[in-house]
Amino acid sequence: MKELLKSFEDYLLDNLPLSKSFHPYFEEALGDMLKAGGKRFRPMLLLSVVKSKKPLLIENAFPVALGLEMLHTYSLIHDDLPAMDNADLRRGFKTLHKKYDEVTAILVGDALNSEAFNQIANAPLHNDIKVELIKALGSNGGIDGMIIGQAIDCYFENQKLELNQLEFLHIHKTAKLIAASLKMGAIVAQYDLDTQNRLYNFGIDIGLLFQIQDDIIDETQSEEQAGKTTQHDGAKNSFVNLLGLDGAINSANTLAKKCEDELNSFDLTLKDSLNDLLLKYIYRHKN
Amino acid sequence: MKELLKSFEDYLLDNLPLSKSFHPYFEEALGDMLKAGGKRFRPMLLLSVVKSKKPLLIENAFPVALGLEMLHTYSLIHDDLPAMDNADLRRGFKTLHKKYDEVTAILVGDALNSEAFNQIANAPLHNDIKVELIKALGSNGGIDGMIIGQAIDCYFENQKLELNQLEFLHIHKTAKLIAASLKMGAIVAQYDLDTQNRLYNFGIDIGLLFQIQDDIIDETQSEEQAGKTTQHDGAKNSFVNLLGLDGAINSANTLAKKCEDELNSFDLTLKDSLNDLLLKYIYRHKN
Repeated sequence: MKELLKSFEDYLLDNLPLSKSFHPYFEEALGDMLKAGGKRFRPMLLLSVVKSKKPLLIENAFPVALGLEMLHTYSLIHDDLPAMDNADLRRGFKTLHKKYDEVTAILVGDALNSEAFNQIANAPLHNDIKVELIKALGSNGGIDGMIIGQAIDCYFENQKLELNQLEFLHIHKTAKLIAASLKMGAIVAQYDLDTQNRLYNFGIDIGLLFQIQDDIIDETQSEEQAGKTTQHDGAKNSFVNLLGLDGAINSANTLAKKCEDELNSFDLTLKDSLNDLLLKYIYRHKN
Repeated sequence: MKELLKSFEDYLLDNLPLSKSFHPYFEEALGDMLKAGGKRFRPMLLLSVVKSKKPLLIENAFPVALGLEMLHTYSLIHDDLPAMDNADLRRGFKTLHKKYDEVTAILVGDALNSEAFNQIANAPLHNDIKVELIKALGSNGGIDGMIIGQAIDCYFENQKLELNQLEFLHIHKTAKLIAASLKMGAIVAQYDLDTQNRLYNFGIDIGLLFQIQDDIIDETQSEEQAGKTTQHDGAKNSFVNLLGLDGAINSANTLAKKCEDELNSFDLTLKDSLNDLLLKYIYRHKN
């Protein structure tokens, strides 16, 4: 798994988006947030699924994994804009609108959004596969996926959501792109439709589980334990505030068990490949 | 030509992007700027080329034309943001960040950007064609096309550009998407590669010509004559300020003649199809 991550990281650094022009810093800005990136979680989900069935196609799938990371990265850049989270730091570096200016942050985000699809279209894979990949990314990363989740998150920041609304928010904002990453791996590896759908549904459950766990960790762990800023905010739309701490832990336990069962239901090679990446997260709210 | 525009307009209104959620206005915002749209110039370029060789494929190409219009529309929405032009009005309506809020304008733009590619991927056309279309849109509408043009336009707003830099700006900001529209029509209609490239180069010339003409019209016509706000701004990066008025008119004449020759070089049906749309513009700076 570490080798795969290293290979992908090398590929990414060798294939940063280019724009040859006389603009003093736009090209540098294009690469900044891509280079700064953390776990490469979505690319690794995709590549792990590919590896389990078509290991010879892993390198062919690198442009697809890079496209996924570009789409995810553009969403972070735009989420950090002054009109949204107005964040100063991301992945330990200055956000683009702080380092350069707001125009650059908007345009780098726009560029990475379009380029995500261009990367997939130019991958050394069969055209039938590439069209399916673009549909999966477009529908889960777009209007009826990540975007409506983010729009709801922003609009309802100071208004109480019902439980089903909070689930809708996180399924769209986060879980759908995770689910798409697994499904896109299955499309490249040419798993049957049933496996594609089961991987997708598993991804939705994993994405939702992560969010419930985050809410629990915010409530129960110190910043040192969690290794990140934790917030105890009673007004926030969170599973802990809606269900109480015990209720949220029960929900997380139930969902974690479901995820574990789903993971165990996959073919051995697929299960092994995903275990490496995912098993350590499934019960992290209990640590 | 009017019939084709009417059919496309009907198609667009029947196929506005949907997001079914409990957000109070995001879905309405998604459609606002698409519905408000003017001449549908890029879709009509694409459809005119398709019509000249494969009239039976025109309806199959409507999703592609809609994708083009979505990409163009997202760029206008983001150009109007407070950090860029800070515009109050667009196509006679309030801009999205004025009617709703900045978050909505950013996210609607992001959604239309991704959805442009999703529309093409879902069009009833052969997968080989769709992949080529996505490459053409991604490369001309993205990092090395429209985006770098816009980044340069913003960065050098108050700094003088050389002639070749001003040409670079407008070729990237405007001409490449016009050229891509013609080329994408040729891809759908399965014109040979030579014709695809000639249409692309013709589109670059047409896009550049329009910009020189706009600069001349800003200098020479009253707002009533031009039918729009005209600016006589000596500090602006414009062809008139760089070449003088006579020099700019000479350039426009030379380029208009080149465009006319290029138009005449195409097969009769292609030429006729484009004449309807373009001939009236080629000498408009002389009116």
